[in-house]
Amino acid sequence: MTGNCFGNLFKITTFGESHGRAIGVVIDGCPAGLELSEKDIQKELDRRRPGQNRIVSPRKEEDKAEVLSGVFKGKTTGTPIALLVFNRDADSSKYEKIKNVFRPGHADFTYFQKYGFRDYRGGGRSSARETVARVAAGAVAKKLLKKFGIEVLAYTVEIAGVKSKSFNRKVIEKNLVRAADLKAAKEMEEAIFSAREQNDSVGGIIEVKATGVPAGLGEPVFDRLDAVISYALMSLPAVKGVEIGAGFEAARMTGSQDNDLMLYSKKSKKFEFKSNNAGGILGGISSGGEIVARIAIKPPSSIKREQKALTVEGKEVKLKVEGRHDPCVVPRAVPIVEAMVALVLADFFLIQKTRKL
Amino acid sequence: MTGNCFGNLFKITTFGESHGRAIGVVIDGCPAGLELSEKDIQKELDRRRPGQNRIVSPRKEEDKAEVLSGVFKGKTTGTPIALLVFNRDADSSKYEKIKNVFRPGHADFTYFQKYGFRDYRGGGRSSARETVARVAAGAVAKKLLKKFGIEVLAYTVEIAGVKSKSFNRKVIEKNLVRAADLKAAKEMEEAIFSAREQNDSVGGIIEVKATGVPAGLGEPVFDRLDAVISYALMSLPAVKGVEIGAGFEAARMTGSQDNDLMLYSKKSKKFEFKSNNAGGILGGISSGGEIVARIAIKPPSSIKREQKALTVEGKEVKLKVEGRHDPCVVPRAVPIVEAMVALVLADFFLIQKTRKL
Amino acid sequence: MTGNCFGNLFKITTFGESHGRAIGVVIDGCPAGLELSEKDIQKELDRRRPGQNRIVSPRKEEDKAEVLSGVFKGKTTGTPIALLVFNRDADSSKYEKIKNVFRPGHADFTYFQKYGFRDYRGGGRSSARETVARVAAGAVAKKLLKKFGIEVLAYTVEIAGVKSKSFNRKVIEKNLVRAADLKAAKEMEEAIFSAREQNDSVGGIIEVKATGVPAGLGEPVFDRLDAVISYALMSLPAVKGVEIGAGFEAARMTGSQDNDLMLYSKKSKKFEFKSNNAGGILGGISSGGEIVARIAIKPPSSIKREQKALTVEGKEVKLKVEGRHDPCVVPRAVPIVEAMVALVLADFFLIQKTRKL
Amino acid sequence: MTGNCFGNLFKITTFGESHGRAIGVVIDGCPAGLELSEKDIQKELDRRRPGQNRIVSPRKEEDKAEVLSGVFKGKTTGTPIALLVFNRDADSSKYEKIKNVFRPGHADFTYFQKYGFRDYRGGGRSSARETVARVAAGAVAKKLLKKFGIEVLAYTVEIAGVKSKSFNRKVIEKNLVRAADLKAAKEMEEAIFSAREQNDSVGGIIEVKATGVPAGLGEPVFDRLDAVISYALMSLPAVKGVEIGAGFEAARMTGSQDNDLMLYSKKSKKFEFKSNNAGGILGGISSGGEIVARIAIKPPSSIKREQKALTVEGKEVKLKVEGRHDPCVVPRAVPIVEAMVALVLADFFLIQKTRKL
Repeated sequence: MTGNCFGNLFKITTFGESHGRAIGVVIDGCPAGLELSEKDIQKELDRRRPGQNRIVSPRKEEDKAEVLSGVFKGKTTGTPIALLVFNRDADSSKYEKIKNVFRPGHADFTYFQKYGFRDYRGGGRSSARETVARVAAGAVAKKLLKKFGIEVLAYTVEIAGVKSKSFNRKVIEKNLVRAADLKAAKEMEEAIFSAREQNDSVGGIIEVKATGVPAGLGEPVFDRLDAVISYALMSLPAVKGVEIGAGFEAARMTGSQDNDLMLYSKKSKKFEFKSNNAGGILGGISSGGEIVARIAIKPPSSIKREQKALTVEGKEVKLKVEGRHDPCVVPRAVPIVEAMVALVLADFFLIQKTRKL
Repeated sequence: MTGNCFGNLFKITTFGESHGRAIGVVIDGCPAGLELSEKDIQKELDRRRPGQNRIVSPRKEEDKAEVLSGVFKGKTTGTPIALLVFNRDADSSKYEKIKNVFRPGHADFTYFQKYGFRDYRGGGRSSARETVARVAAGAVAKKLLKKFGIEVLAYTVEIAGVKSKSFNRKVIEKNLVRAADLKAAKEMEEAIFSAREQNDSVGGIIEVKATGVPAGLGEPVFDRLDAVISYALMSLPAVKGVEIGAGFEAARMTGSQDNDLMLYSKKSKKFEFKSNNAGGILGGISSGGEIVARIAIKPPSSIKREQKALTVEGKEVKLKVEGRHDPCVVPRAVPIVEAMVALVLADFFLIQKTRKL
Repeated sequence: MTGNCFGNLFKITTFGESHGRAIGVVIDGCPAGLELSEKDIQKELDRRRPGQNRIVSPRKEEDKAEVLSGVFKGKTTGTPIALLVFNRDADSSKYEKIKNVFRPGHADFTYFQKYGFRDYRGGGRSSARETVARVAAGAVAKKLLKKFGIEVLAYTVEIAGVKSKSFNRKVIEKNLVRAADLKAAKEMEEAIFSAREQNDSVGGIIEVKATGVPAGLGEPVFDRLDAVISYALMSLPAVKGVEIGAGFEAARMTGSQDNDLMLYSKKSKKFEFKSNNAGGILGGISSGGEIVARIAIKPPSSIKREQKALTVEGKEVKLKVEGRHDPCVVPRAVPIVEAMVALVLADFFLIQKTRKL
Repeated sequence: MTGNCFGNLFKITTFGESHGRAIGVVIDGCPAGLELSEKDIQKELDRRRPGQNRIVSPRKEEDKAEVLSGVFKGKTTGTPIALLVFNRDADSSKYEKIKNVFRPGHADFTYFQKYGFRDYRGGGRSSARETVARVAAGAVAKKLLKKFGIEVLAYTVEIAGVKSKSFNRKVIEKNLVRAADLKAAKEMEEAIFSAREQNDSVGGIIEVKATGVPAGLGEPVFDRLDAVISYALMSLPAVKGVEIGAGFEAARMTGSQDNDLMLYSKKSKKFEFKSNNAGGILGGISSGGEIVARIAIKPPSSIKREQKALTVEGKEVKLKVEGRHDPCVVPRAVPIVEAMVALVLADFFLIQKTRKL
C-alpha cells in the first residue's frame, strides 16, 4: 500500500529519483535455482535506455545494472535480489530556475499537494526514469517465465494517428519506433520528427501479447488477470487507457459475435479457441490462449513550445520546458510494457502452484 | 493476493456463490464513529437488484442486507463490519444438465482448469452475483466519503452503439438504462429489447465521475490513483477496457493540446484546471479536479441463441443458455461502478492521512 | 494491517463481537479439492465451547458452525470459505451498569482511547469470544495439514504453579484442564476451584508441538517460522510470553550445550537431531524435527472480588465483575493454541511450494 | 509474505548477504518532511558495528550508511528511502572448506532444504549481518518517533546467568555489555571472556522499554501491539523467547495480584496505572503506560570447540568453527532490539491516524 511495491509472491520494491544517486529495485520471492546474470538484465535496460538513437532523449546514461545480492554462482538463492543503476548524467541545472513552477501536465502540482514539498530535479520520483527499476525487475521475471515456455512481446501499433497495418515480429527491434510494420514505422518516425520540429509531442498505442501462458492463472473476483494487468499498465507514466482482447470494441458487439467458441484437438488433447475477443482471459483467469492487451499513451507533457504555467504562489509565467525530453515515449515504453506484464505473470504463476491439492 | 480482498486501510473481503447460501463482505478498517444503518446499504443494493424492472434478470432476490458486526448504537466501532445477504431465489435445476458443458464466453473452462473442479450452479463464484458484496461495501465507503464532501456518480453513456448526447444528472435514476440523456436512453432501451427478442445480448460504456476529491490522493509509482481505479473497474465481470480522462483519444493528441493549463483563483485561493484531459489525476495523484473514467462492458455471454459448446471431455454439443439473464448488464453495473470507485477513494483518503508530518 | 486478517496464502479475516449477532471468519486461499464438512469444524469448536464442563464459563452456547460458502459437494472449491456462528446466549444486562467503568486488566480503557467509543457488551470485539472464529478456521487448516502428515497438539503443562511431571498423550482430553499428566491435572483442577471460591483467578502455561513438519517451512529474516508462531500465539487474549524450544533457559546455556547435533540415518536417508533445544527451527526455518513452543497465560482479569476501578470521568468506584467468567482460561485455550499454530503452518506450507524451481 | 518485508505503512524491505556486495534496506511510507541525515543513521550503526571493542567480533567494517534516495535538502520527500552499506571486510576463505558441512546450531541445513542450494559464505542471508539493515531503518523510525515524544531504550539484564540488580540509564552505553548496572556488567564481561577462553559462548536477556507511547496504538485481534512486538523481536537471530510486562511470571499470579489498578490525576487530567504487570498493553493496545518487553538470546552457535557435524552427504566430520565470531551477541543486539521496537511503533503510530473520524 505504500505504493512502491508490486506483486505478492514475486514482489518488487523500487526506489530512486531521476536526479538522485541511483535507481534500484529489490525483488523478493524469486524462486531459488534460476540462472541469472547481469547480462540478462542489461539486455533489457539497453532497450529502454535514453540516448540509444536519434528519436529519444539524448541524456547519456549507460544504465549499467549491478546485482548487489540474491545471486550466488550464477544462480538465484531465493533471497532478495537487489539491482542498482547509478545515475550518471543527471543535469539538475535546468530545474533550479523552475523549482517554483508547476509544469503543465506534470505531477509537480500533485506531489506538492501530497507531500507539502517536492524534489523538483527532473521530476524526482515522478520521472519516467523510475521505470529503469521496473525493466530490471521485469528482466528477471522474463527469465523465470521463459523457463516455463511463457513469452511476452510488445510493439507499437499506432503513433500520432498512424496505424500499423501488418505484423512482422522480426522487424520490431529494427525500427526506431518498435512497430511490427516497417512501412507504418517510417511514417510514425516522421510524425515524431515533425512534432519535435514544432516543439510539440505525440502519443500512441502499444499492444502486448503473452504466449505459452497455461490456463488457470489469475484469481477470481479482485485479482483477476485482466484487472492486475490493467493495474500494472496503468501504473506506467503517461498511460491513459487499457483494453483487453476486443476491448472497447466489445461494447459494440452482440453476445453471439463476441463469444469465442472452442475447439478440441483430439491429437494434442487440448482445448483451443476459434477467436480471441476475450484476449485469453475468461472470468479473470487465463484460458490457455494468447493474452492480448493494448494501452493508450499520451503525448509527453514536456514541450519546448511556450505554455502558460503557474508558480507555487499562483502567479502566471511563460514556460518553455527545457531539458532532454522524448518527443514521443511510445518506442521506449515497449520494453517497459513487457516488463510489467512479465511481472504480473510471474506472480500469478507462483500463486497458482498453491491453488489445488 | 488471495483474490477476494480489496484495499489496504479500508479493506474488504468478499465471499459467496451465486447459488450458495449467502453473499457477504467483511469491511476491516472503517474508522470508528461513522453513522451507519442497514438502510444506507439497502439503498444501494436496491439499485443493483435483479427483478427491479422489465429490462433486467427476473430472478427474485430481495437482497436484504444484514449487519452482523462492527456497528453499535448506530455508529461504526472501528472493528470489522460484516454484511450478509442470503440467496433466496437460486434455481440450480437449469445448471444440472449443463454441469459438464463449458458455456461460451463464461469462466466455466478456466475455473475448471484452475481448480480442477467447480461449482457449476449459476457460475458459482464467477457469477456477477458476487457484486452484491461490492455494492454493500461500497455503500459504507460512500457514507464515509460523503462526510468529507466526496461524491461518486456513474451513468451509462453508450449501449449497443447508441450514445448519450446530453447530460442531465436528474434523469439518471429515472430511466431503465441509467443514462443522463433521456432521449438516448429510450433508444438504448429499444436496442436492449430488440437484442433480447433475437436471443442475443448487447454491451455498452459507463462513465464515472468523482467530485470533491482533495488533491493528494493516490500513491506514486504502482498504486497510482488511476492504476488502482483501473484495477478496481477491470475486476468487474464483463469489463474489457478502461480509460481515464481523454483516454484513448489522448493517444492522438499533441502535447500542446493535451496539457491541461491551470488557473489560480485569488478569491478562493484555489488552483484549478481549464480543461480536464487528465481526468483529475497527474502522476497518479488526484489534482483536486473531477476524476473521470470510462469502462467498456461486453455483451453478456449467456444468450438463448443456439451456440456450439464443448463438454469437459471435448465433445461438441448444441447449447441454448437458459436461466434468468440480463440481455445487457450495463444498467445494473452503474451502482457497482460507483461502489468500486468509492472503495478506492476511501482507501486512499485514509492512507493520505499518514503521508506528511 | 487492519488487524483482523491473518496469513498470506491461507488467509483468514474474522469478525464479530461477544454480544453481537454472530462471530465469523472468511478463509481465503484454501486449496481446492480438500474434503471438508461442518463436522470437521464442529469437533474443534466443541473443545473450546463455554459450558462444556464445571470448570469453565456457564454461558450456554451451542457454537454451531455454518458453512456459508466455498464448499461444494463436500469439497473446497478454492473460493472463500465463510464460517458463521450465531451468538445465542448473550446476556448484556450485566454490562449496562458498568458501561462507563474501565474494568481492571481489561481492554475497556484502551479501546475507548483508540476509537473514542466502544461496544461495552461483554467486551465487544476484545472478548475472548472472538477466538471462536480462530478455532473454526484452524479446523480447516488442521484438515489440510493432516493430508500431508502434519499434526499439531497442545496441552496444559502448568496451572497456578502446579506443573505436569509426565506426558501421556491419551489423557489430555480426559481431564478438565487438558494436562498430559493425570495426577498433576487433579491438583490443577483443585487450584482452579480454590481460586474461584476466593473470587479470584489463576493462570498457567501451555505447550504446543507440531510433528511431521517437513524441513524448509518459514521464511528468512522477518517471517521466520518462530517469529510468526510467536506473533500468532501472542495475539491470543491473556498471553504474556512465548518461547521456542529451550526458550528462556537457552539464555543460560553455553553454545556447546545448546547446539543440537545431527544424525544421519543411512536406512531412512534422513537427517535427524540428537536433541531439540532449537524447538525444530533453525534460522527461522523448520528443520524436520518436532516444533515446540510454550506460552504463558495470565489469570483472567474478570474476578468477583471487589476491586477499585475508574469511570470514564476518572471517578473511583468499587467493582465486582459479574457475568459468567472462567476462573482460568488455560484449558479452553488449548484448542485455540492448536488452531493458531495450524494456521501458521498451513500458510507456510503453501508458500514453500513456490520457493524453488 | 516474501519474508524480507516488515511493516505496513512504515514498511521496510531488506536485502544482502554477509559476504555479498552490500546490505541494504528500502523504507517505504516514511512521511514527508522529516529531517534526516546520514549522521542519524550512522550513530545507530556504530552501536552494532563489529570491531567496536574487545568483546565483539573483530571483523573490520566501517558500516558506512549511504542514503541513495528519498531525502532532498535534508528532509524526507515521502518517497522510498534506500539505505546502503557496502561490505568491506568479508573474508570468505574460511567458508570454502566447510561449504558442504552443516554447522551445528546454524541455518545451513534448513536453508539447504528450503532452497536446494545456499550461499555458504558467512551464512549468506542467514547471517546476523543482515541486522545492519534493520538498525539503519530503525534509526529513521526512531527519528520519526522522537518528533512525537516517543523513545525506545534497550539494555542487557542478564548474561550467562549473571543478572543486573540496579538500573542506571546513564551507564548503559558506558560498559561493554550495555547493562544498566555497572557492577553486574563487570561480572557479565568476565563471563564472556571466560567463555571465549574455553572456546565456548554464552547467552542472555535484554529488556526494552518504550516511553511516551500514546494510548491507542495496536490493532485488535491479530495485529496486537504485543503480538507484533513479539513477532519483531523473535525475528531476530538467536532469540528464543519473548515476554511482555510480567511475562511468564504472570502465569503464576492470581487475577487480583496481576490486574493493574488505575489512577486519575485531576491535575494533568490523565489516567495512569499503579503497577505495570501488563507491560503497557491491554487487549493488544497501548495504554499510555511504559511498554516493557524482554527477550532470551541463546549462546552463539559458532564456537571454536570441536563439535561433530554432518556433511551434505550425511558423513560425520569434526568441526571447529573458525571465523570472527562474537562469544556473546547480547551487547550488540541491544541497538537492534531498539530498532525493531521503533519500527513497530512507527508503523502503528501511522495506522492510528486513520482509526477514528
